[in-house]
Amino acid sequence: MATLTVPDPIPSPAEDAEKLRKAFQGWGTDEKAVIAILAHRDAAQREQIRLAYEELYKENLITRLESELSGHFERAVYRWIFDPVEREAIMANVALKKNVDYQVIIEIACVNSPKELLAVKQTYHARYKHSLEEDVASNTIGDFRKLLVALVSTYRYDGEETNTGLAKSEAKILHDVIEQKIFNDDEVIRILSTRSKAQLTATFNCYKDEYGSITKALAGESPNEFALALRIAIRCITSPKKYFAKVLRHGVDSGADEDALTRVIVMHAEKDLKEIKEMFHKRTNAALGHAVAKVTSGDYKSFLLALIGD
Amino acid sequence: MATLTVPDPIPSPAEDAEKLRKAFQGWGTDEKAVIAILAHRDAAQREQIRLAYEELYKENLITRLESELSGHFERAVYRWIFDPVEREAIMANVALKKNVDYQVIIEIACVNSPKELLAVKQTYHARYKHSLEEDVASNTIGDFRKLLVALVSTYRYDGEETNTGLAKSEAKILHDVIEQKIFNDDEVIRILSTRSKAQLTATFNCYKDEYGSITKALAGESPNEFALALRIAIRCITSPKKYFAKVLRHGVDSGADEDALTRVIVMHAEKDLKEIKEMFHKRTNAALGHAVAKVTSGDYKSFLLALIGD
Repeated sequence: MATLTVPDPIPSPAEDAEKLRKAFQGWGTDEKAVIAILAHRDAAQREQIRLAYEELYKENLITRLESELSGHFERAVYRWIFDPVEREAIMANVALKKNVDYQVIIEIACVNSPKELLAVKQTYHARYKHSLEEDVASNTIGDFRKLLVALVSTYRYDGEETNTGLAKSEAKILHDVIEQKIFNDDEVIRILSTRSKAQLTATFNCYKDEYGSITKALAGESPNEFALALRIAIRCITSPKKYFAKVLRHGVDSGADEDALTRVIVMHAEKDLKEIKEMFHKRTNAALGHAVAKVTSGDYKSFLLALIGD
Repeated sequence: MATLTVPDPIPSPAEDAEKLRKAFQGWGTDEKAVIAILAHRDAAQREQIRLAYEELYKENLITRLESELSGHFERAVYRWIFDPVEREAIMANVALKKNVDYQVIIEIACVNSPKELLAVKQTYHARYKHSLEEDVASNTIGDFRKLLVALVSTYRYDGEETNTGLAKSEAKILHDVIEQKIFNDDEVIRILSTRSKAQLTATFNCYKDEYGSITKALAGESPNEFALALRIAIRCITSPKKYFAKVLRHGVDSGADEDALTRVIVMHAEKDLKEIKEMFHKRTNAALGHAVAKVTSGDYKSFLLALIGD
């Protein structure tokens, strides 16, 4: 469930646009007003506000926000303002700049349903005049390229049917290569990138019954980066909420990882942040809002807390 | 342009269903009647006839046709009766049985537009409860697997924009590895499977200007099977009609290759067989219908000629 709260009754898009315009005027920006509006509107409402603002003031709201806000707060608002599909297309594109952030690419490829991933890829085409596949392929090398291109390319079957015999035989294939630490084996990439999520869940369950947890096997004693990437993919496929709760735990550990906090909170506030929050609380004995408040400050902190709903 | 001809006025689906039913009754089947109807109805009309037949006679028309017809004629009608998307999903599935017919997989992956390929993959999901990706991956090995999985997985950008600098640099990458005969280089597969068709066409044009024809370079003196597969992919991307005209030329050379003839004629009769026929004629100085008639016989021959429109 979402943590986003929306006032009832909801002001009209024109009223919101007007209040935002006021918040931008004069010396300095009234960030509190920006948060009070934008952090409490859903994707469709934000879209309406963008349209109303453009019509009323002949100015692009997003460009204006970028010039008014700054730092982590600006980046968080810039992520939040888009609808989920466009946001993920933008996040994928940003993740491919300079040092490729493969974690974000894996999340987008593996957490989304096949149809959702397709929508992100279609939006990516429209926005960047390239395919996500080609941008991933031309910005990565070696084993990471093989894995990431395969994960973003695939259009998985989305049905619930599973084949127990296949789950057993592919669990064995995975076990045999993981045991030998040949993480980059083509079979691992084939299985992870082509099988349906239901089939993969069956395969990992077989793995668990026969050999113990596959994610633990991949973490090992001194795991290499590629094995950790495989582990992220598996966690994103089988238990995305648990995975994101862990990203948040790391995000508040020993100072803040703002990129991680922004990403998870912005992506999930409108979707399933409530469950992720509960998982976070269970593991850390601390409320997510409290933990985030400890490591962030200013308008950025207020914005995240508004989305978290604490 | 299509070669398919449809009578005007067109009989109602119920009339057609009734005539087909009559053609099935009594001793033997009236194959001429079957051809006279089905070879002169477009995809939407054939679908209507299937529905009308099912409603009138509580019997599946396709199952009945399979039991009434036989040999190459049966297989050709079985391909033809479906609409193009479902037909290609079926053809891909058949191509993956036993000895994988990689040529058919490459044709489906590379001739279709990104959207058409996606539609085939969606129909494949619905029909086989698997993804095309996973069935290609689990039925192939080695370099062919890498190439075929990449080609069927990709969702290419479909725009017309091209980047000349990129075309030049990727033409050089291709040339460098082809010259060294390292056809299975990951870069070759990356470029062929992720770039848009417009960009690839620009790249192959650069290749031609700088180094001569890439397809000739791949054919070489003693080409290996993998280089020939790359060549098919390139021809399907850049000049599909010319490619199919050549498949037909091989299909009538030294006896008939019925699978190839059926495939090309059935797939294109409703689409662009007219241009393919003209190319065939230009190169062989023979009409396609005449050439096909020479190497086929019986109802199979009559059916193909009806579709060819000769």
